[in-house]
Amino acid sequence: MALLIKGGTVVNADRSFRADVLCEDGKIVGLGEGLEAPAGAELVDAGGQYVLPGGIDPHTHMQLPFMGTVASEDFYSGTAAGLAGGTTMIIDFVIPDPQEPLLDAYHKWRGWAEKAAADYSFHVAVTWWDDSVHRDMETLTREHGVNSFKHFMAYKNAIMCDDEVLVNSFSRARELGAICTVHAENGELVYRLQKEIFERGITGPEGHPLSRPPECEGEAANRAIRIAEVLGVPLYVVHNSCKQSLEAITRARLEGQRVFGEVLAGHLLIDDSVYRHPDWRVAAAHVMSPPFRSKEHQEALWQGLQAGMLQTTATDHCCFCDPQKRAGIDDFRKIPNGTAGVEDRMAVLWHHGVNSGRLTPSEFVRVTSTNAAQIFNIYPRKGVVQVGSDADIAVWDPEASRTISARTHHQNIDYNIFEGMTVRGVCSHTVSRGRLVWADGELRAEKGAGRHVDRPVFASYYDALKTRAEVLTPQPVVRAKAAE
Amino acid sequence: MALLIKGGTVVNADRSFRADVLCEDGKIVGLGEGLEAPAGAELVDAGGQYVLPGGIDPHTHMQLPFMGTVASEDFYSGTAAGLAGGTTMIIDFVIPDPQEPLLDAYHKWRGWAEKAAADYSFHVAVTWWDDSVHRDMETLTREHGVNSFKHFMAYKNAIMCDDEVLVNSFSRARELGAICTVHAENGELVYRLQKEIFERGITGPEGHPLSRPPECEGEAANRAIRIAEVLGVPLYVVHNSCKQSLEAITRARLEGQRVFGEVLAGHLLIDDSVYRHPDWRVAAAHVMSPPFRSKEHQEALWQGLQAGMLQTTATDHCCFCDPQKRAGIDDFRKIPNGTAGVEDRMAVLWHHGVNSGRLTPSEFVRVTSTNAAQIFNIYPRKGVVQVGSDADIAVWDPEASRTISARTHHQNIDYNIFEGMTVRGVCSHTVSRGRLVWADGELRAEKGAGRHVDRPVFASYYDALKTRAEVLTPQPVVRAKAAE
Amino acid sequence: MALLIKGGTVVNADRSFRADVLCEDGKIVGLGEGLEAPAGAELVDAGGQYVLPGGIDPHTHMQLPFMGTVASEDFYSGTAAGLAGGTTMIIDFVIPDPQEPLLDAYHKWRGWAEKAAADYSFHVAVTWWDDSVHRDMETLTREHGVNSFKHFMAYKNAIMCDDEVLVNSFSRARELGAICTVHAENGELVYRLQKEIFERGITGPEGHPLSRPPECEGEAANRAIRIAEVLGVPLYVVHNSCKQSLEAITRARLEGQRVFGEVLAGHLLIDDSVYRHPDWRVAAAHVMSPPFRSKEHQEALWQGLQAGMLQTTATDHCCFCDPQKRAGIDDFRKIPNGTAGVEDRMAVLWHHGVNSGRLTPSEFVRVTSTNAAQIFNIYPRKGVVQVGSDADIAVWDPEASRTISARTHHQNIDYNIFEGMTVRGVCSHTVSRGRLVWADGELRAEKGAGRHVDRPVFASYYDALKTRAEVLTPQPVVRAKAAE
Amino acid sequence: MALLIKGGTVVNADRSFRADVLCEDGKIVGLGEGLEAPAGAELVDAGGQYVLPGGIDPHTHMQLPFMGTVASEDFYSGTAAGLAGGTTMIIDFVIPDPQEPLLDAYHKWRGWAEKAAADYSFHVAVTWWDDSVHRDMETLTREHGVNSFKHFMAYKNAIMCDDEVLVNSFSRARELGAICTVHAENGELVYRLQKEIFERGITGPEGHPLSRPPECEGEAANRAIRIAEVLGVPLYVVHNSCKQSLEAITRARLEGQRVFGEVLAGHLLIDDSVYRHPDWRVAAAHVMSPPFRSKEHQEALWQGLQAGMLQTTATDHCCFCDPQKRAGIDDFRKIPNGTAGVEDRMAVLWHHGVNSGRLTPSEFVRVTSTNAAQIFNIYPRKGVVQVGSDADIAVWDPEASRTISARTHHQNIDYNIFEGMTVRGVCSHTVSRGRLVWADGELRAEKGAGRHVDRPVFASYYDALKTRAEVLTPQPVVRAKAAE
Ligand SMILES: [Zn+2]
Ligand SMILES: [Zn+2]
Ligand SMILES: [Zn+2]
Ligand SMILES: [Zn+2]
Ligand SMILES: [Zn+2]
Ligand SMILES: [Zn+2]
Ligand SMILES: [Zn+2]
Ligand SMILES: [Zn+2]
Repeated sequence: MALLIKGGTVVNADRSFRADVLCEDGKIVGLGEGLEAPAGAELVDAGGQYVLPGGIDPHTHMQLPFMGTVASEDFYSGTAAGLAGGTTMIIDFVIPDPQEPLLDAYHKWRGWAEKAAADYSFHVAVTWWDDSVHRDMETLTREHGVNSFKHFMAYKNAIMCDDEVLVNSFSRARELGAICTVHAENGELVYRLQKEIFERGITGPEGHPLSRPPECEGEAANRAIRIAEVLGVPLYVVHNSCKQSLEAITRARLEGQRVFGEVLAGHLLIDDSVYRHPDWRVAAAHVMSPPFRSKEHQEALWQGLQAGMLQTTATDHCCFCDPQKRAGIDDFRKIPNGTAGVEDRMAVLWHHGVNSGRLTPSEFVRVTSTNAAQIFNIYPRKGVVQVGSDADIAVWDPEASRTISARTHHQNIDYNIFEGMTVRGVCSHTVSRGRLVWADGELRAEKGAGRHVDRPVFASYYDALKTRAEVLTPQPVVRAKAAE
Repeated sequence: MALLIKGGTVVNADRSFRADVLCEDGKIVGLGEGLEAPAGAELVDAGGQYVLPGGIDPHTHMQLPFMGTVASEDFYSGTAAGLAGGTTMIIDFVIPDPQEPLLDAYHKWRGWAEKAAADYSFHVAVTWWDDSVHRDMETLTREHGVNSFKHFMAYKNAIMCDDEVLVNSFSRARELGAICTVHAENGELVYRLQKEIFERGITGPEGHPLSRPPECEGEAANRAIRIAEVLGVPLYVVHNSCKQSLEAITRARLEGQRVFGEVLAGHLLIDDSVYRHPDWRVAAAHVMSPPFRSKEHQEALWQGLQAGMLQTTATDHCCFCDPQKRAGIDDFRKIPNGTAGVEDRMAVLWHHGVNSGRLTPSEFVRVTSTNAAQIFNIYPRKGVVQVGSDADIAVWDPEASRTISARTHHQNIDYNIFEGMTVRGVCSHTVSRGRLVWADGELRAEKGAGRHVDRPVFASYYDALKTRAEVLTPQPVVRAKAAE
Repeated sequence: MALLIKGGTVVNADRSFRADVLCEDGKIVGLGEGLEAPAGAELVDAGGQYVLPGGIDPHTHMQLPFMGTVASEDFYSGTAAGLAGGTTMIIDFVIPDPQEPLLDAYHKWRGWAEKAAADYSFHVAVTWWDDSVHRDMETLTREHGVNSFKHFMAYKNAIMCDDEVLVNSFSRARELGAICTVHAENGELVYRLQKEIFERGITGPEGHPLSRPPECEGEAANRAIRIAEVLGVPLYVVHNSCKQSLEAITRARLEGQRVFGEVLAGHLLIDDSVYRHPDWRVAAAHVMSPPFRSKEHQEALWQGLQAGMLQTTATDHCCFCDPQKRAGIDDFRKIPNGTAGVEDRMAVLWHHGVNSGRLTPSEFVRVTSTNAAQIFNIYPRKGVVQVGSDADIAVWDPEASRTISARTHHQNIDYNIFEGMTVRGVCSHTVSRGRLVWADGELRAEKGAGRHVDRPVFASYYDALKTRAEVLTPQPVVRAKAAE
Repeated sequence: MALLIKGGTVVNADRSFRADVLCEDGKIVGLGEGLEAPAGAELVDAGGQYVLPGGIDPHTHMQLPFMGTVASEDFYSGTAAGLAGGTTMIIDFVIPDPQEPLLDAYHKWRGWAEKAAADYSFHVAVTWWDDSVHRDMETLTREHGVNSFKHFMAYKNAIMCDDEVLVNSFSRARELGAICTVHAENGELVYRLQKEIFERGITGPEGHPLSRPPECEGEAANRAIRIAEVLGVPLYVVHNSCKQSLEAITRARLEGQRVFGEVLAGHLLIDDSVYRHPDWRVAAAHVMSPPFRSKEHQEALWQGLQAGMLQTTATDHCCFCDPQKRAGIDDFRKIPNGTAGVEDRMAVLWHHGVNSGRLTPSEFVRVTSTNAAQIFNIYPRKGVVQVGSDADIAVWDPEASRTISARTHHQNIDYNIFEGMTVRGVCSHTVSRGRLVWADGELRAEKGAGRHVDRPVFASYYDALKTRAEVLTPQPVVRAKAAE
């Protein structure tokens, strides 16, 4: 069935312009002023509103088994909540246990995701190394549309990679044309600090940020970046929360390195005072890694986003409710790490980004959608409102306001880190693959309507990398046989 | 008459894709695979080639009266030479003498430009200050399509602005929605150094770079940037030649400031050893300001371009032939400053940028066309191959090679700073406003075919600036009347 | 008469060690453990205390005529207050009016200073330029012990230097072996902002910092530094208050440039919230230039001090009482700029620097005394406790505490910006030229006991500068006469 | 027997002054103008010369067993060669094999060092970890005068530490008041690159620098620095060879961290073109780690030294002769790493540092002697010409010249990386513990005359670190028992 969005202003990464948008069969098929609605077409009145490419959240963990429990948000509820906020695609993570074959884990996650209400794709984590991992990485890229591999530099004695695994996996990804991604924290230091802080008698959530200082994150980010530089592979650093890792990315980018940085909506807006909240529940609800930071880091992250040193915004959406969090009531190290965000990312970024004059609407589109699509090589299928693209669209009312609250959100979690924040700029309608799934407060998400999005390897930046490597290839010195 | 470009790969700033391009009435009217040629349409076979937005050179000086002579290249010969290299638009400069009314100067330049073979526009220099200047700035923006004002921080006792003029003009531009641009060199230092060096007995062209060290440029760039920051106006720094000014721009951009940087093809590729050439003619031919720099600066500028800290490439095309240069045979201070480049910019950037793996083809398009169009607010009319845009197109053969030489170039100057450089990647055809003006070595430029391009004020980044200024507006403290 | 300081720990810039200190005839004549007191010698028991080189405050303005009034602290009261806090020498400023001969101004200030209770010296400001200034600079260095010249980059229409004066004066200083110093704020911008802010209806003291943002300071600091770099002259930037100017200094120092930076105790400890104090008197009492800054700048300044990027600490001691400040009751631009500090600098730096672990005691000595002595070339006469040096000594009790207050201070001003601050670490005794002038709360300062300290030109760093300049001297290219 | 050095100019880190120097019983006992020689005293005429604190080389490897051979220079020949160049003390390294008890290794090296002709001390490497290492670190600091522990971040499968060992050892050093030192190269990357480069057919010495790019060094330096920052322990990074590690140090120091950097004379003066020398012997002679770098790094290192970001200069003196080097004739990975330098360090630094105007003579003393003494806590016993200090002195003739050559040097190696360099500034006499051991070309070194120098723990900077840690100690949040 056709859908016509009338009277709005389309905002893409490169410009904005008045145009109606016609969708059919899941695609955008018409774009221009004064389009006629086909017979039977559904109409959306976008007068006075913006028509944006649907948001892409490149970092979520639906129903993740983690720290002895399972994230409360599943692929249906999570993607549906995203749709309510204008996010039409997520990239989630397959995280094999050490020794678990990558393909086994991959298929397990694909099964879980079948109920998703919006499109999705998967980064696959490399958490250990042997020949089968080497082999499975190829299978995943060739047969399963995976073009990104994730590496955890923290979580010692669990899924942490040491330098040897990083070097092996990065080298392999380079051969396959996949991008590497890292969770950057020095896990060895975190382990030591957790122990010291706990033994010093700090057992509550305030111990969490103390055990994961910005220096640990900056160190790991820099390490991953330099390994990627030496091996000549593109790198994407997830959830940068602090000046230190931003600076590591900035240094590399200023030298021309192809490294990308993601920032979470939460890290832009919440500071670490939450961990000293007198109510343990509130403090524990904010336990995630990397933790929220002191205010100076937020300003730095905003500047990094404005300057293009950070390209994407995400949420690390990974929900645990209070009963789950209470596993760590006596020991902050046992509080499941994670919180929500997929529903509110677009709104809080618009309010604090566009309404504050930090970002133009086009820049907002870049950091919420287009850049992610380009980095993960699904552009222009996603990330732009253009004829031929998937009809994933958010209609955005810049004058409407709403107040965020756990009481009203669609996320399956009992807490919202943006609780009470009134934002101006609201997603009035969401279109997912051409279907109107959110309209003026009514959520029409359909279980299983989402599709896996294959992501091809060798994104455009890979050609340049390959050329550069060839140009710089060293040659041996030809020497006369030394007299012996 | 219609023109169909068949079988090529269109490269835009955001991506590349196979498509034919149909042009009619000066516009792009069709884009897609397998387009049919209308009856009588001219055909260009772009098989195996790229189809790029025509280059925009945002910094040229055709027939400039300067240092007692007039640049040898006029608006016809200069734009024609540009077309031969794939550049379909220039932005030149109106430079009033001190006390000369801006509008008088503007009309003089507009008259000179009527013979242009390709599209053009003008930055207008503010070289002095009084109420008439204040008034003329408004007239130029309202009635004449000017949205950028230029300021020279060097050339003492001629067109140099002191801080007072900068502050006045920047403030006025802010009100009008125009962007400020600067030639950044500390003119007071240059003046002192010129004198010292000449008196020390260095009278040849090697004295030129000694009198304009990078520190002078970096200082002035930083000054202009900080004045723009304080006054809240966007700034464009022309012809950055050295690390110092690049770093000033980088610092500002990393803080989120809306400052842009231009780099000349020459500064990316030529080093300052030319000034010590034993042949005075060769050395003098390279005299321009800022001068060519030592090699370390070239590497820095390339990195700046790759990192997006520099957005545009230009030439400062300003031709003086040897007989003109000889005015300074006994005194380097009298050598007319300037050299050519408009014809070769695209080719040398492709060769050293794309073939080296520094830039992807899309990034090449950004820095040769799209970014200039966006900064100077004529996008998407220029800077993209898209239905509705002006049919300004370069067909680019990535496998063809040619060797640059003054003997064969179309520029009206007796020297070429890239003499002898063999480049892979050649503009095979150029389309200007829908007309095929360059085809496999034949130049069909037509005198007067170029049009002035009006540039509207208040580019999209201005909204964000305005919002930011409002958000940060300070309020007075309300105090009880102090007891007296 | 002899004076023996017994049982203390001498702290010099390079180390600390147990030693008694014997002073005679204004000099240190003995240093070692277990010294015998000569007959009749006065004894100071320094058991459990540190024995430090007396503080040098390189930036004060006693009885300065400024903004239509005269600073309330004269050379006697001001130096006496310094002695009460362990500061035994000041370097004040001779500030000629434009057109006033430098020598006339110099002699006027020397006359005012005759009543000083502690040693003093003078920087001389260059506020205008002609041949007489050129000549007087030489006379001052040759005959009057002046080795530093000051330049104000702010205070338009009064004592502000433009670039031309800076270039002239810096060049002249280079010939004479004198160091240049600058008050770095872009006066043109300050002038514009003052007007804009006042016209916007902000007339109270909160307008003062708004009219002098950090960017103005950073710009000017960078400009002065780059001019000094190009001309090859050492530079000293006074009262750095913000990250921006610190960064300008840091950049230059990291390149090996001989540039020095001073920070005021106030800028390290007070933030700009004072200007929004509801009591006009309080707000106005803090009006000085550069103004106090937001907290992030304080942290940056401390780090600069720890890193050695800032070498000296001062006060810009320049007292105006409330009745004087009230000249600006309706217009913040008319509030006389300045506040006190000479008495408390050492104490607040010890408390916040040493007690916080930021500085070792030796580092404290460097930044309160030794570095100033070395930069201004009076070391080891001042700045070290060593046989042969002037007997200017502060005995420091690290365990004693006191609370700072205008009610108890010795400064001739009705306000103290550190009011209510309790510091641990107190100057128990001060020795000036061998005389005990402060002992456990009793001030024995003697009017006229201070002496002018001649400062020789060509400090040790000048040799290196001269050698470097010679090594890098450019040579002309010898060319065959070009055929004509 | 007494020794009197007459007529020279003493240069210390803080200043220079005319003074005779009287030595007796290994100590300096008199200092001043016009000293009388005691009866029988030996006389050195230092007229027109400088009298400097003897050089300290904080990084040598005499008779090191390494890569299947043993360094050709033993403790006698090596220290004697140092004396011929004005270096009067070395700090060498005890390097236990993995699993070898630290104390066993320590005693082995102490035995080897008994024949030393000059004073010496030892850093002890931590190459593995268990409880015995934890215990032996304490024994070494308490009973054997060790205050520094070394960590190799390269040499995988041999002496490389992973992060776990680093964290353990740094934490232990902090408790003991010892300083940590690191050889900073990412050993995992080096291992991978060595393999790749060798397999690509590059088997000669040019493969050595390719396998150890600057990025590997910068990464490791940054990692060690951040681990030290988090754990609150002072760090000394040995042999910084490149911008990357210098920048890591600079970043940390600018934040106030107590991190120190060493640079080798070779890295300041030799570039990596040596590895492409057509003569394998020449190329192989330069194989050391980190390798020599491209020229831009040398300029950066000089600036770092001038700016005080690098504090010490050393040599990594570790001699292997050609027959030893030939073990790697077919595989660069088997060429023993190391070369000489202890004899020439002072001369090449004077020539290229002082004669070029980069350093003042006092700054030269700092970077060749005083800073090492202060960092390793043996100041003022070493590092200054002062009454009470050890009589370790170099008399320096600034006008004399000599040409460096393996044919004339005293080092026990068949190659000199400074071969053919003519330096102005020569050590005319060396005094070691009061004995004249080098006089106008005659070497009078005595086997076994050197003594071990105990280095106490808790250098002065440790107090500040401890205070800072206390001030910043986090406290738990006290919460009401959460209702359950
Ligand atoms: Zn993570
Ligand atoms: Zn995650
Ligand atoms: Zn220019
Ligand atoms: Zn120009
Ligand atoms: Zn001032
Ligand atoms: Zn002042
Ligand atoms: Zn090493
Ligand atoms: Zn070594």
